[in-house]
Amino acid sequence: MTSALERGRGIVQTLNPRLEQVLAERYDDLVDGFSESLVEWAYGRHYARPGLDLKTRQLCTVAALTALGGQTGPQLKVNIAHTLAAGASRAEIVEAIWQMAVYGGLPAAINGLNAALDVFAELDQSA
Amino acid sequence: MTSALERGRGIVQTLNPRLEQVLAERYDDLVDGFSESLVEWAYGRHYARPGLDLKTRQLCTVAALTALGGQTGPQLKVNIAHTLAAGASRAEIVEAIWQMAVYGGLPAAINGLNAALDVFAELDQSA
Amino acid sequence: MTSALERGRGIVQTLNPRLEQVLAERYDDLVDGFSESLVEWAYGRHYARPGLDLKTRQLCTVAALTALGGQTGPQLKVNIAHTLAAGASRAEIVEAIWQMAVYGGLPAAINGLNAALDVFAELDQSA
Amino acid sequence: MTSALERGRGIVQTLNPRLEQVLAERYDDLVDGFSESLVEWAYGRHYARPGLDLKTRQLCTVAALTALGGQTGPQLKVNIAHTLAAGASRAEIVEAIWQMAVYGGLPAAINGLNAALDVFAELDQSA
Amino acid sequence: MTSALERGRGIVQTLNPRLEQVLAERYDDLVDGFSESLVEWAYGRHYARPGLDLKTRQLCTVAALTALGGQTGPQLKVNIAHTLAAGASRAEIVEAIWQMAVYGGLPAAINGLNAALDVFAELDQSA
Amino acid sequence: MTSALERGRGIVQTLNPRLEQVLAERYDDLVDGFSESLVEWAYGRHYARPGLDLKTRQLCTVAALTALGGQTGPQLKVNIAHTLAAGASRAEIVEAIWQMAVYGGLPAAINGLNAALDVFAELDQSA
Repeated sequence: MTSALERGRGIVQTLNPRLEQVLAERYDDLVDGFSESLVEWAYGRHYARPGLDLKTRQLCTVAALTALGGQTGPQLKVNIAHTLAAGASRAEIVEAIWQMAVYGGLPAAINGLNAALDVFAELDQSA
Repeated sequence: MTSALERGRGIVQTLNPRLEQVLAERYDDLVDGFSESLVEWAYGRHYARPGLDLKTRQLCTVAALTALGGQTGPQLKVNIAHTLAAGASRAEIVEAIWQMAVYGGLPAAINGLNAALDVFAELDQSA
Repeated sequence: MTSALERGRGIVQTLNPRLEQVLAERYDDLVDGFSESLVEWAYGRHYARPGLDLKTRQLCTVAALTALGGQTGPQLKVNIAHTLAAGASRAEIVEAIWQMAVYGGLPAAINGLNAALDVFAELDQSA
Repeated sequence: MTSALERGRGIVQTLNPRLEQVLAERYDDLVDGFSESLVEWAYGRHYARPGLDLKTRQLCTVAALTALGGQTGPQLKVNIAHTLAAGASRAEIVEAIWQMAVYGGLPAAINGLNAALDVFAELDQSA
Repeated sequence: MTSALERGRGIVQTLNPRLEQVLAERYDDLVDGFSESLVEWAYGRHYARPGLDLKTRQLCTVAALTALGGQTGPQLKVNIAHTLAAGASRAEIVEAIWQMAVYGGLPAAINGLNAALDVFAELDQSA
Repeated sequence: MTSALERGRGIVQTLNPRLEQVLAERYDDLVDGFSESLVEWAYGRHYARPGLDLKTRQLCTVAALTALGGQTGPQLKVNIAHTLAAGASRAEIVEAIWQMAVYGGLPAAINGLNAALDVFAELDQSA
């Protein structure tokens, strides 16, 4: 049986293969074991669980980060990219964001749409 | 072409047929037009949109209400029931809630699991 | 010239004459100087300021506590009573609450309306 | 009788005549019907209601966006401008913001004052 | 070298020896591996780290849960008990809570003081 | 016996001697009495209290501002500097921040670590 860390690394391989290295370079000197701990917890202990498919998990994350608003802007952009990698269309992502106007208010939803516009523009530019 | 209010009523018919009447009885004397306005905006202008299926929309809502935490407890319970009505399994709902430990913190996720336990127990009792 | 504490006590006399004593009895043993400090800061350093009338200040507070949601439920009820004491009508208070659906989301606004229904029912019962 | 959309457009005419067009140009390709839906819901279903005057409504919005903090920064600036258009003085707006130190904490209030300083400086520069 | 799970269990032994069992009984049927995952992440990957003593860690948690407010009420009470177990005095806990009036606003701080009053009263009663 | 304002000024002298002047220059024209009121409330009525040492108070503030996230970014940076001035090590500050991943979620904790990296880099550059 694989460990939570190994299962997390399997998911990260699908969503964003360079994620663990990027996190390690930026944070592991500051917080010893940061990147390993994050992959184990977020991806190994949550995304790797059975019971809900990866694409729906990512859409739930996009919805929640939109509703939480301010403190999660950079993470919302990263997760919009992960959600595309999990097989969701741009339209599905936009719908998950815009629906949050009902629960988190219009400012949160509009800021979420702005994040999506930024991510899509970057992808089109690098295409 | 149907109006947003009519489209919203179509969705509510699937999720919770008595919703508009329950809201009207409780709030329309206080806020004139409350129930109609809520169905038009939340269900007609959001859930009735094409681009994302109703079950995934409901799972996104459950995830976001969990992450938002305290202020949305009663609405989380209502939406757990709506999400079952939209075809999600209990396991899928639990996964969408528990994943929020990553984004909204452990207290928010644990409170979400408690809400699910309450809703499931009520359903089992009334079964 | 009066001190901030004295100016705060003047405002409290209008809004809720027993407030300082109620706070003192409940909290001053736990936090030395609590009631005096709260009256000085909240009422002396904010509500007693010129530039905005007391009724509008109270409506702003009701709106903000509604939008903040979960953590401010008990304080919202106290401030709905203070806002009536400052001369606002029930309808004005309800409007300030319901408008928050746009900014804080529907759950926050609905919880705010529930708080108003509770306060109004208590007042009608004790009348 | 006018529709909620028409009533919303009437309010927008007073507060910010170009708002619907600006929103349409930025968001309607992404979310079909975005600008119309926002004007109908926010302005037609809330600001256009009787029971509370437009200036007080705007001051309530400024207070709530200040207290909500991080996720609403850009919307706070837009609403400070709308509140001036609704007839409030700069001093009244500043008071509604600063009072939020009591309810949302000092960081939220200070960030709100910074938003007001930015809006006032832009207005003075373009005058 | 011990695993994160083992290190977490060592900390829990100090703070609340029955915690893992209580969590397992309530949540492990719902979320497979819940109690183990929580002890590993929260206590093994955070509290067990060197660099900050356990008592200060617990006071930081009490402060943060107070400031976060609504969604963390039950967890605040649990952590007030843990903080006493880590060697903090009641006065130190009360100070960490009341200070949050500056950052999270008065409602959050007052709700935190109410939680402390409840925990202290329960302890005095069971003494 | 000294007043709350004088006690606050004593604390500010330790943490950040220029704070009151910087605040006065930026905000006192906008909000009459702003800097005095802030020093009296935050430092005189909270930090100057007996019962908890200044270093632990500052670590609690860093933890809470991290957990609150978005709306408190600039204040988090100021308080990281104040916490160093109160005698905490960089490692202690980093631990107080990273622990918040448990309570406020990973995005809040990562944004807090980014704030610490910025403050430490500025200090190293000006050294």
